[in-house]
Amino acid sequence: MPIPATMTAITISEPGGPDVLSPVQLPVPMPGTGEILVRVRAAGVNRPDVAQRQGHYPPPPGASEIPGLEIAGEVVARGNGALAFAIGDRVLALVPGGGYAEYCVVHETNALPIPAGLDTVAAAGVAETFFTVWSNVFGRAGLVAGETLLVHGGSSGIGTTAIQLGKAFGATVIVTVGSDAKAEACRALGADLAVNYRTADFVEAVKTFTGGNGADVILDMVGGDYVARNFAAAAKDGRVVQIAFLGGTSPTLDLRPVMVKRLTYTGSTLRPRPVAFKAEVAAALREKVWPLLASGTVRPVIDSTFPLRAVADAHRRIEASGHIGKVVLTVGDTQATAYQ
Amino acid sequence: MPIPATMTAITISEPGGPDVLSPVQLPVPMPGTGEILVRVRAAGVNRPDVAQRQGHYPPPPGASEIPGLEIAGEVVARGNGALAFAIGDRVLALVPGGGYAEYCVVHETNALPIPAGLDTVAAAGVAETFFTVWSNVFGRAGLVAGETLLVHGGSSGIGTTAIQLGKAFGATVIVTVGSDAKAEACRALGADLAVNYRTADFVEAVKTFTGGNGADVILDMVGGDYVARNFAAAAKDGRVVQIAFLGGTSPTLDLRPVMVKRLTYTGSTLRPRPVAFKAEVAAALREKVWPLLASGTVRPVIDSTFPLRAVADAHRRIEASGHIGKVVLTVGDTQATAYQ
Repeated sequence: MPIPATMTAITISEPGGPDVLSPVQLPVPMPGTGEILVRVRAAGVNRPDVAQRQGHYPPPPGASEIPGLEIAGEVVARGNGALAFAIGDRVLALVPGGGYAEYCVVHETNALPIPAGLDTVAAAGVAETFFTVWSNVFGRAGLVAGETLLVHGGSSGIGTTAIQLGKAFGATVIVTVGSDAKAEACRALGADLAVNYRTADFVEAVKTFTGGNGADVILDMVGGDYVARNFAAAAKDGRVVQIAFLGGTSPTLDLRPVMVKRLTYTGSTLRPRPVAFKAEVAAALREKVWPLLASGTVRPVIDSTFPLRAVADAHRRIEASGHIGKVVLTVGDTQATAYQ
Repeated sequence: MPIPATMTAITISEPGGPDVLSPVQLPVPMPGTGEILVRVRAAGVNRPDVAQRQGHYPPPPGASEIPGLEIAGEVVARGNGALAFAIGDRVLALVPGGGYAEYCVVHETNALPIPAGLDTVAAAGVAETFFTVWSNVFGRAGLVAGETLLVHGGSSGIGTTAIQLGKAFGATVIVTVGSDAKAEACRALGADLAVNYRTADFVEAVKTFTGGNGADVILDMVGGDYVARNFAAAAKDGRVVQIAFLGGTSPTLDLRPVMVKRLTYTGSTLRPRPVAFKAEVAAALREKVWPLLASGTVRPVIDSTFPLRAVADAHRRIEASGHIGKVVLTVGDTQATAYQ
């Protein structure tokens, strides 16, 4: 099938609500050296996309202005020196932007083969959360078997991934969630304890569940007053990793626990990291996690799918926080959706 | 020489100023399993001793009520199973308390032979700062050759040790100090840049000196508003280690740099750590740092010595912050001071 000159893609007409997401016709991008062009069949929707839409999170230098951080589809062209995949290979990829479109370029080292048995929609929900959880929980925080992992937002894409990877690698996993239904979903994924933060204090719950020890690793995207509470819920030598600040960035904070309990407070953002870093994470995932995806031991949790033209509804779904797992856009013809 | 039944030791009669430090007669302690009894010839004075005297820093469970965290002297008795040293061996040791006395017990794994060429007073100024700097700067923060180390309180015992160890292991070292005389002393020890914080902003100075990169590792005992400034002065992937909070524990803090620059904020206290941890640090020091002390490449900087009975003056010296390097108590007869 020939590659057309133009494609449908979503742009942000101006900073604002979901309705500023507009389909437009844009030139199909050309793969550069080491890059592949992917015919996008599905694209994940993530909270950073919402922040970008609102004007709070501009794309890093060099990235597409089109939103969208993860895709799944098939390789339709290869740039100079791009030899890792053949035309027609089914791939998923982490991209610094450009995912909400019919075609997307990505460096081949930031793409991975879709594991056997994973449909395209599910595959589109893998990259952002698996790269994030792997590099932060197992990389920066060094979670090892036998430790306790506390994950806030347990029913989010990040949360559902962290539960499964934590359990797969031998940790005890505690999550916080905002409803009993979400707690149930997290327990079904393997969480050892799900704390409804609306009805219980997670610090007390973690302390009680761990016999007073606290959590060895805490993955947090809330910030605000959660930071001090994370320090309280952390075990001695605990590591607290901040991957977003949905609840605020500038708390008044008693820092003594950092010294007295020898805590490590750290964090990272994924999108602005160089291709080479993402390639390292991709290689580690392929070695350690792809077998688990192929066997079905871990799997992306898909909350809902929306056609690309209904991207505004997909954003509304994320912003309402009722979702459990990933929200995914489907792109293109019915052939594509047949993958589901 | 027979070991007497009692000894002179310093106790804290009640929380307060330097004059609450009182010499008393107490039983000479008995070495337990794995412990040695040391005839103390000199004992280091440290800021935690001041906090203990003021009632802010009680000894950890099981530790002597006598202040004093580091000693040098000779082995005069050995408990069951203590075979690392012979009677008469000159040792220095890190102790959880009990240093301000004529005799002190310590687990043999927390003692080290006094390096050749080091007099007893100098040896008494080694343990607290070398254990602290090694375990925090090279251990927790992982400083490696080619990186930049920023040390606050550059002329303190910790600071003068950190300068020399930083340089010996190939780092660029920047310090902050409170006077030009202290800056001069730090440069003489090898500091590449000494910033007088009374006349210059250390964040700007660090940024300028490092070509905008910032410091890879920051060792801080100030806290308070220094924490935010440390985050500003830190390089991407920088590590900020908090070992005291002389300037306050609860700043209002913008935490975004932790995530955006992927900082690691951590800290530790040394005194309450178990004997086994201190033994690990001692073993690393013996392997990596003892040759540098023996060759004179690094050496403890001694500010002043006071006889044990003048311990109140020694505390005044520390509290006035005029010192450069270590304040050391000399203990016992003139034979002992002849080591100097």
